[in-house]
Amino acid sequence: MVNNKLITENLHTILEENLKLAKQINPTEVNALVEEIKSANRIFVMAAGRSGLALKMAAMRFMHLGYTVYVVGEVITPAILQGDVLLVASGSGTTATVLSAAEKAKKQKARVVAITADAQSKLAALADQVILINAATKTDFGVSVSSQYAGSLFEQFTLFVLESIFMTLWQESGLTKEDLWPKHANLE
Amino acid sequence: MVNNKLITENLHTILEENLKLAKQINPTEVNALVEEIKSANRIFVMAAGRSGLALKMAAMRFMHLGYTVYVVGEVITPAILQGDVLLVASGSGTTATVLSAAEKAKKQKARVVAITADAQSKLAALADQVILINAATKTDFGVSVSSQYAGSLFEQFTLFVLESIFMTLWQESGLTKEDLWPKHANLE
Amino acid sequence: MVNNKLITENLHTILEENLKLAKQINPTEVNALVEEIKSANRIFVMAAGRSGLALKMAAMRFMHLGYTVYVVGEVITPAILQGDVLLVASGSGTTATVLSAAEKAKKQKARVVAITADAQSKLAALADQVILINAATKTDFGVSVSSQYAGSLFEQFTLFVLESIFMTLWQESGLTKEDLWPKHANLE
Amino acid sequence: MVNNKLITENLHTILEENLKLAKQINPTEVNALVEEIKSANRIFVMAAGRSGLALKMAAMRFMHLGYTVYVVGEVITPAILQGDVLLVASGSGTTATVLSAAEKAKKQKARVVAITADAQSKLAALADQVILINAATKTDFGVSVSSQYAGSLFEQFTLFVLESIFMTLWQESGLTKEDLWPKHANLE
Repeated sequence: MVNNKLITENLHTILEENLKLAKQINPTEVNALVEEIKSANRIFVMAAGRSGLALKMAAMRFMHLGYTVYVVGEVITPAILQGDVLLVASGSGTTATVLSAAEKAKKQKARVVAITADAQSKLAALADQVILINAATKTDFGVSVSSQYAGSLFEQFTLFVLESIFMTLWQESGLTKEDLWPKHANLE
Repeated sequence: MVNNKLITENLHTILEENLKLAKQINPTEVNALVEEIKSANRIFVMAAGRSGLALKMAAMRFMHLGYTVYVVGEVITPAILQGDVLLVASGSGTTATVLSAAEKAKKQKARVVAITADAQSKLAALADQVILINAATKTDFGVSVSSQYAGSLFEQFTLFVLESIFMTLWQESGLTKEDLWPKHANLE
Repeated sequence: MVNNKLITENLHTILEENLKLAKQINPTEVNALVEEIKSANRIFVMAAGRSGLALKMAAMRFMHLGYTVYVVGEVITPAILQGDVLLVASGSGTTATVLSAAEKAKKQKARVVAITADAQSKLAALADQVILINAATKTDFGVSVSSQYAGSLFEQFTLFVLESIFMTLWQESGLTKEDLWPKHANLE
Repeated sequence: MVNNKLITENLHTILEENLKLAKQINPTEVNALVEEIKSANRIFVMAAGRSGLALKMAAMRFMHLGYTVYVVGEVITPAILQGDVLLVASGSGTTATVLSAAEKAKKQKARVVAITADAQSKLAALADQVILINAATKTDFGVSVSSQYAGSLFEQFTLFVLESIFMTLWQESGLTKEDLWPKHANLE
């Protein structure tokens, strides 16, 4: 059996790494994403792997708040058009399917907002807005930024930034928990 | 290597089994589903396994045609409400998650339409409209109705019925292929 | 209300179009896919939209038959390696995400098998084996090959070819319905 | 435009709420889950909505570490059997599809481990092991435990507990980042 102390330490390490990133984040960049969401006709989200799952968690909340939101690759997702925003996340900024979607969105004159750990990446260059997260990417094999595996810290903090964006949009909306509740999926 | 003749024979067997079902289907039942789709505020689809994949193929087309459609379990699916229709498929009419969703939909006063192979099933009893497909269900281990494996024929024919419903709705709409094209997902 | 006759006619039109394709299919091409599946360590499937749903229907059956199969993009899908086969479907043979995956699979020295409607496409050129389906692709706006919408006939017939491949593999295996049953998902 | 300060405050509030839960968690309960994972033949995960997405993030990592893991509802998920473990999460402990799956898993003599916010729930009673998270559930409309919306804190902390479990399992394994890398999906 594992030492209980080890589990507790790891839990605290993970949270401390996220807290450290919270101190480094640029709120103006986050604010720009808030504005993109508010002014978009519709929000499309896309990312590969665990970043994609973090974006889906956010997408669900944006839907609860009354936004029209689609996950790229889901069955009923329509075409992106001018006036829409594509929100993507890629630690390395090089994920092929994400880059391809971002390029296609730009051709449709949709806005592109990228969350990435590499400000110099092709994805960052292509995006209209960038939120830079100073986390290791999944191909960094050092421990300088995080002692966690691969892109874990990036993926966790991507979720946290989006949770804080939701919380902010919710506060601004003036809506109560009871107001949002009727949007929640009710067939599961 | 398999005999080429065997592959060709199997392909024809499968199509012949579907043709036989096409002669047995009750067009009035299919028509009732057409009407449910046309009069619903929003269409929700749900089924387990391969039946679920067949419904998703149909959901995508209904979206192309301009209907508001959701797949239960996808990230951005909201609550079902009165005025919506839930379209489900279950060969046996006993799939637990499908039955549970159908019951919840009824409580919300949404309409429920079921495609099933068992007219005596709990699902059929619960639904507002039923399309009966005279195919074996996946727990029938005989070969009386189909020489295919498990619920294969039911799943194939569920798809076909929905394809014919889409084709009918499309013809009725007067829309051209070019009209529908801009709805197609454009980020893949 | 729609004319009942129209619904019945459309159902027959759809099945007749598939029957016509069944007469044109090259069983040697289908046989080559059967062999790829039998000799692969693991089977990966990938396609966009409705073609992707048809491949998923087949993937489920291959799993029931005892094959190790993965859907690209699902959560627990590992890396493809030499000895594996990637099965893709694209009517046009130009879907960006499918092409990108096929190229990556080739770099890993995995085999690539493509189902397509365009023998001259980049995807067909790239694949180790091709099954050619003589159906309209979704950007054909004529009615020469099919009176159905967009890629519908291609998607339907892709499913049928895979159903006949499953049926053939099943017959060859000598396994009974009862033998396969314990593989079926039992938590839904 | 939103006040930058508000965004920063919300980010810190969210992290502080998670830190507070980290101090309350019972490491012995977490340790029991670690042992269940290590001793299971195969791991099945299931939850609805955002809890389900958090479990999927964990499932991906367990796969990277070499475990055989399946997400209930994904296409290639086989039947659960004795010797397997079903890991579920439900804040309220009352989600119908989760309860139904847990009951079915028990009938197969598989183990069930539940992460929940309600120690008195039907799910907690049914599970072989419980990890209790002292967060509000999504139908708590007060602010006593969390100022976040609905089950947000529960969902975030479910992810964190699983991240710390992965980190612990990884450390114990002695494997390097380079060892795990070849498992990562390589077709996206």
